[in-house]
Amino acid sequence: MRVAILGYGNLGKGVESAVRQVPDAELKAVFTRRDPADLKLNTPGVPVYSVDDVEVHKDEIDVLIICGGSATDLPKQTPEYVKYFNVIDSFDTHARIPEHFANVDKAAKENGHIALISCGWDPGMFSLLRLYGNCVLPEGQDYTFWGKGVSQGHSDAIRRVEGVKNGKQYTIPVPEAIAAVRNGENPTLTTRQKHTRECFVVPKEGADLAKIEHDIKTMPNYFDEYDTTVHFITEEEFARDHAGIPHGGFVFRSGVTGFNKEHKHVIEYSLKLDSNPEFTSSVLVAFARAINRLHNEGVNGCKTVFDIAPAYLSPLSGEELRAHLL
Amino acid sequence: MRVAILGYGNLGKGVESAVRQVPDAELKAVFTRRDPADLKLNTPGVPVYSVDDVEVHKDEIDVLIICGGSATDLPKQTPEYVKYFNVIDSFDTHARIPEHFANVDKAAKENGHIALISCGWDPGMFSLLRLYGNCVLPEGQDYTFWGKGVSQGHSDAIRRVEGVKNGKQYTIPVPEAIAAVRNGENPTLTTRQKHTRECFVVPKEGADLAKIEHDIKTMPNYFDEYDTTVHFITEEEFARDHAGIPHGGFVFRSGVTGFNKEHKHVIEYSLKLDSNPEFTSSVLVAFARAINRLHNEGVNGCKTVFDIAPAYLSPLSGEELRAHLL
Repeated sequence: MRVAILGYGNLGKGVESAVRQVPDAELKAVFTRRDPADLKLNTPGVPVYSVDDVEVHKDEIDVLIICGGSATDLPKQTPEYVKYFNVIDSFDTHARIPEHFANVDKAAKENGHIALISCGWDPGMFSLLRLYGNCVLPEGQDYTFWGKGVSQGHSDAIRRVEGVKNGKQYTIPVPEAIAAVRNGENPTLTTRQKHTRECFVVPKEGADLAKIEHDIKTMPNYFDEYDTTVHFITEEEFARDHAGIPHGGFVFRSGVTGFNKEHKHVIEYSLKLDSNPEFTSSVLVAFARAINRLHNEGVNGCKTVFDIAPAYLSPLSGEELRAHLL
Repeated sequence: MRVAILGYGNLGKGVESAVRQVPDAELKAVFTRRDPADLKLNTPGVPVYSVDDVEVHKDEIDVLIICGGSATDLPKQTPEYVKYFNVIDSFDTHARIPEHFANVDKAAKENGHIALISCGWDPGMFSLLRLYGNCVLPEGQDYTFWGKGVSQGHSDAIRRVEGVKNGKQYTIPVPEAIAAVRNGENPTLTTRQKHTRECFVVPKEGADLAKIEHDIKTMPNYFDEYDTTVHFITEEEFARDHAGIPHGGFVFRSGVTGFNKEHKHVIEYSLKLDSNPEFTSSVLVAFARAINRLHNEGVNGCKTVFDIAPAYLSPLSGEELRAHLL
């Protein structure tokens, strides 16, 4: 499988690294909106091209992994580049998935390509676990918790607060809420009861710390519905303790069976990830393998993780999978 | 979807119950090796037929759910009944899956039917999680733990011990082993370090308790490689505290990513089931939906859970799934 990356940020670098860990993929090119001469890859010998030149390379690539942002990049990029390539993205604006799907599906079918959108862990692996959970326990409740981990959106938000030099926000699931769900209690949980938010802030010199804390804690949409803690730290502490991008979370399905619905069942899936972008990238590469195979079988159009039979994700044969993993 | 059950034991009753919990399935018949007149179903109006008459009813059923045992029933039943129906089974003798697959695949293709074998939770949901884990973390380790739950095989084994009137065996994962795996330590674990076995035994009157305990703890294959505890209880205590068939377990995938493999990731999936047969049955009904749909699309032959795109398991449309579960 010949893979190319579009966008060389954290996610693009994660894909570059993930490709090295599989036996059947080769990184053929990186496309960038920056000046290609400015990019220094971690993999020697792989060419960097301007995104303006993608079309020239359309026959050299089996799957283009689009590593743009969901807010403004992917809604334009995925329907555009599926004209030239099979593509995969990690579009994660849940509310806009139907619209994005329709746009990508149309362009993919018009050009005989296959696309897979909204891949990663949420949406992605978590979505799969929600789907399996709903199907095998049709009478039940879903719970998703995120964290402990870094929310990029909330970290960006605190960095925009007046007087803040640098900052990072961790989303933390409330242990008592998780315990109640795990125990099959089917609690009804408010936003505040599900997650807390912890902020590590490097203030600018002379900044009003009380005002920063107040501005963060009362910020609408981001923090006002949560119990938020703000810690002020130095730039050195920030660099030492908060350089990583860990994340994770939990998906639960809690349900009942039996003629009198007398038996409870709890399904729990959790991720504990040292690097959110690298794990997301690993998922993208596995699903890239699947869509490349499906395209070779003549399948076109837009897909999601729900449409991919799991065997397509593995480099092993059906015989090997049945013998070793079933 | 018109469903029939073959074999009305714990699993067959579970299927009968599970069918009631889904909007799109109807129980059309139960087939039995016993005298049909002796069977009293929980669902009024459903006919019970002798298994000798299955062929007569072949056009009335979309999927036959075969609820026999793996040791001797399913290796014969599944290849036989796939001649007349689309079928699904829960064949769980891992080592013999390739052989069973080949036999069922041949008969299914010769008769234009679809079969799904080895469905349930292990093999089944646990297999899926092992496969997904291996694909998204290609460099890593797998761990599967079972329990706390009732092992039917081990319970049967202790009931065969001289002086034992009744007995039940619980398989229990070792908490320290789970903690080490969850913590990303990638331990190498012996059989003894992974699980303990706890037996509740009702002795016959005047039986030699010390001999029973010794015979259980030293039983080859079943107990000799484990730390086993034996409790002697009364028939009343047995009925009060050990009537259920709970089970569960854990699947872990622990792996690394990064250019220097510097980031650890732990994926954990766990089941906590009040009723092993009812949960297994729920999984069977969801996959029965999938194979019925695939058969309507013209797909034949033997499949496993690895071959089923998750969307086929749900009564919801693709649009609904993308809008609500992705």
